[in-house]
Amino acid sequence: MKLYDDPRSGNGYKVRLLLAHLGRRYEYVPLDVTKAQTRTAEFLAKNANGRIPLLELDDGRRLPESNAILYWLAQATPYWPADPFEQAEVLQWLFFEQYSHEPNVATLRYWLAIRGTELSPLEQQLLAQKQQLGRAALAVLDVRLASRTFLVGERYTIADIGLYAYTHVAEEGGFDLAHVPAVRRWLDRVQSQPGHVRIDAVGFAS
Amino acid sequence: MKLYDDPRSGNGYKVRLLLAHLGRRYEYVPLDVTKAQTRTAEFLAKNANGRIPLLELDDGRRLPESNAILYWLAQATPYWPADPFEQAEVLQWLFFEQYSHEPNVATLRYWLAIRGTELSPLEQQLLAQKQQLGRAALAVLDVRLASRTFLVGERYTIADIGLYAYTHVAEEGGFDLAHVPAVRRWLDRVQSQPGHVRIDAVGFAS
Repeated sequence: MKLYDDPRSGNGYKVRLLLAHLGRRYEYVPLDVTKAQTRTAEFLAKNANGRIPLLELDDGRRLPESNAILYWLAQATPYWPADPFEQAEVLQWLFFEQYSHEPNVATLRYWLAIRGTELSPLEQQLLAQKQQLGRAALAVLDVRLASRTFLVGERYTIADIGLYAYTHVAEEGGFDLAHVPAVRRWLDRVQSQPGHVRIDAVGFAS
Repeated sequence: MKLYDDPRSGNGYKVRLLLAHLGRRYEYVPLDVTKAQTRTAEFLAKNANGRIPLLELDDGRRLPESNAILYWLAQATPYWPADPFEQAEVLQWLFFEQYSHEPNVATLRYWLAIRGTELSPLEQQLLAQKQQLGRAALAVLDVRLASRTFLVGERYTIADIGLYAYTHVAEEGGFDLAHVPAVRRWLDRVQSQPGHVRIDAVGFAS
């Protein structure tokens, strides 16, 4: 199994973290998104949407979209609930992540801490909006976690992995987690799960 | 079963279309997003993220996020594949929809055809970027559909329902579907599925 990824990507980290929990070996293919290495003709032939992470199975089948990869890898493991409504709730949080959380929390981290270039004039104008939407997404998480240990079913699932990835580095994008104490306690709980690895751990092999 | 929704919403239409295919009855609760009716204290108590569609089951459980609702309703029906890799591919396209397609294709329709107010100066600056990203998303769909009848497994699934909702009204947002002929043929195939209803059909009852 081969994982095409940028080592700094939170979307890629979701997959690496689950693979570490599962103790599964994989070949790691690092690509630099800041150098458009996911937009080459060679990579676009693998994923027409030009994005990492991309999982390539040994039989050649390929799967893009971090949260769809989590679903695939988590089947028949404790990281995917057995109850259909809890399954739908896990997906609810993963769709929330891609629509309401990542485009704000992850994008500001990318602009301010990863890319290494100044903000464009348009990005400067978008900054306040993304700060506000990112704070709102973190507040929605905080409401959910105020009375729960994990996002769904009181058990650690791929919903937690999916939301943890960019939340735990939100401060790199200028977000202050002091305002979301339930989120901070949950970050600690996620970090204490057996098999946890950091965002800079790549190419885990059991 | 109760569906909170704005009748003009493509995200809500996904759910209404699947419910129509399934012949399932539901109570329809229309809300006007342009009047912030999803941001009232009453609605925020139901969905802290303040968005429609929201499905409320008869036992009081609630599920937001259109694509998670599709997952829940499609279980054990022909609209959700049996093969786990095809399931992951369905989710891949639904995550693509929420990240790469909807924020551009649907947002321009909302700005230009639904909301009924002028673009703000910031929106005017974002217009070209959203047009470009929306065209790119439609092109990714076109590549996929050039050699297939449906998005996954050569069968009509919730991946098609999820992508159809805003693609079939993309022209309201200024997108020209003449550039994506495979998408246009697929739109016709979706419309010819048994039980198809239009975006303005609400409160279907079998």
